Amino acid sequence: MDFSTTLQAAWARNDSLLCVGLDPDPAKFPAALKGRGDAILEFCKSIADATADLACAFKPQIAYFASNRAEDQLEALIRHIHDKHPGIPVILDAKRGDIGATAEQYAREAFERYGADALTVNPYMGFDSVEPYFAWKDRGVIILCRTSNPGGSDLQFLETGGRKLYQHVAELVATKWNAGGQCALVVGATFPAELAEVRRLVGDMPLLVPGIGAQGGDIAATVSAGRTASGTGLMINSSRAILYAGKDENFAAAARRVALETRDAINRFRR
Amino acid sequence: MDFSTTLQAAWARNDSLLCVGLDPDPAKFPAALKGRGDAILEFCKSIADATADLACAFKPQIAYFASNRAEDQLEALIRHIHDKHPGIPVILDAKRGDIGATAEQYAREAFERYGADALTVNPYMGFDSVEPYFAWKDRGVIILCRTSNPGGSDLQFLETGGRKLYQHVAELVATKWNAGGQCALVVGATFPAELAEVRRLVGDMPLLVPGIGAQGGDIAATVSAGRTASGTGLMINSSRAILYAGKDENFAAAARRVALETRDAINRFRR
Repeated sequence: MDFSTTLQAAWARNDSLLCVGLDPDPAKFPAALKGRGDAILEFCKSIADATADLACAFKPQIAYFASNRAEDQLEALIRHIHDKHPGIPVILDAKRGDIGATAEQYAREAFERYGADALTVNPYMGFDSVEPYFAWKDRGVIILCRTSNPGGSDLQFLETGGRKLYQHVAELVATKWNAGGQCALVVGATFPAELAEVRRLVGDMPLLVPGIGAQGGDIAATVSAGRTASGTGLMINSSRAILYAGKDENFAAAARRVALETRDAINRFRR
Repeated sequence: MDFSTTLQAAWARNDSLLCVGLDPDPAKFPAALKGRGDAILEFCKSIADATADLACAFKPQIAYFASNRAEDQLEALIRHIHDKHPGIPVILDAKRGDIGATAEQYAREAFERYGADALTVNPYMGFDSVEPYFAWKDRGVIILCRTSNPGGSDLQFLETGGRKLYQHVAELVATKWNAGGQCALVVGATFPAELAEVRRLVGDMPLLVPGIGAQGGDIAATVSAGRTASGTGLMINSSRAILYAGKDENFAAAARRVALETRDAINRFRR
């Protein structure tokens, strides 16, 4: 089953547009996990098991694993999610961007080594830096468009040919790069007007939307601006607000409570 | 010693603007190395040892290690270069680009875990996605500007405010982002006119120039367009043409021969 089909099924089955971001920071782990060699894996497994019926996707951020020499734990985590929670796609958030020969190595890393269902990539180097990922026909390629951070405006908001750079990227992906139907876009929740503009430009293409929760984006405005006519089309990501909802050994239950509230808050504005 | 000072000393000591790119592809290794668990490390060490007196920098490309589950070999390789060839900076080519909290994790990975002297980064997400790397004051931050691949033109050549996006990036880095003097730019050898334009915009800022050799860039045009008044300012990268100059057990000697020819070809046009 390809990424887009899996995602649609997950939206329906869990009645959820919530993507749970897995950004494990050992400094914030509960005391019981501290000092364990497999703390990152155990923490993320607990979060995944506690939220799998509430999420449409999981999104591990590779930097948090790489800075802790925990690539093996990332491999084991994705295997665990696929084994225990089949049907919930795993997006590897790595924002890759490099020339074709190198992109092919990154594709092997993401799709073969880690078995990710989708990968985030950066469009700055253009089509031939994105194309190699499409050779894995059943995987998704999620391209940065309008990012949620303040500095996102430095380049993405520049005017070019009567529109802004992020609009150009959205159009380029919708009209040219997405010939195989594998693309999605990253559009931050911190800019609802721009989310609405991207939705207008790309039809029903899935949008990965970071920026609610710790980054301050508003759920009502995000859903209203970004949903498709059928009330889906979004993977609304929350990481820190869910992961660190509780500080003690009940962290997984606390994460579930916040994930449930977030899913339901999103659903109030979907229809 | 900071990155810029180390680089200047390496330019002078080895009379070289050549950066040796380490993109290890086990499928291209000589038969004697095939099947060895440490083949990537041994191959790259042999290349580094054979070329260290001819190079101003080494540039391992992390994708080639990550796709082969060889992060430990990358760690060992950088330690080896620092131990055996002090004074030759190591640039980790990873083209990172993410929000501040994640960028800090990538910085820890590059500068603490791997001990890299400099890191390549992508400017698409703006200043706050680049700023965290500057906290490591003695390290270099090498920002993509005009890349050597054909698709580089898709975004970088768009007109914005009377100039092209890559020119805007060059100016932004030269006038704002480089307050601490830690920046360099990536500008492909495949576009000498644009290399000259970037040199005009950024003064003596170091430029990392991929694209000679396998990618087809011309050495004379590159050096003439990109050198500073003092005949330096460039890290001209060659990867495949050096690494795979020989196919048998004499690969390191063959690599040395091509590295020497390339260094000398560059030097003919420097002064």
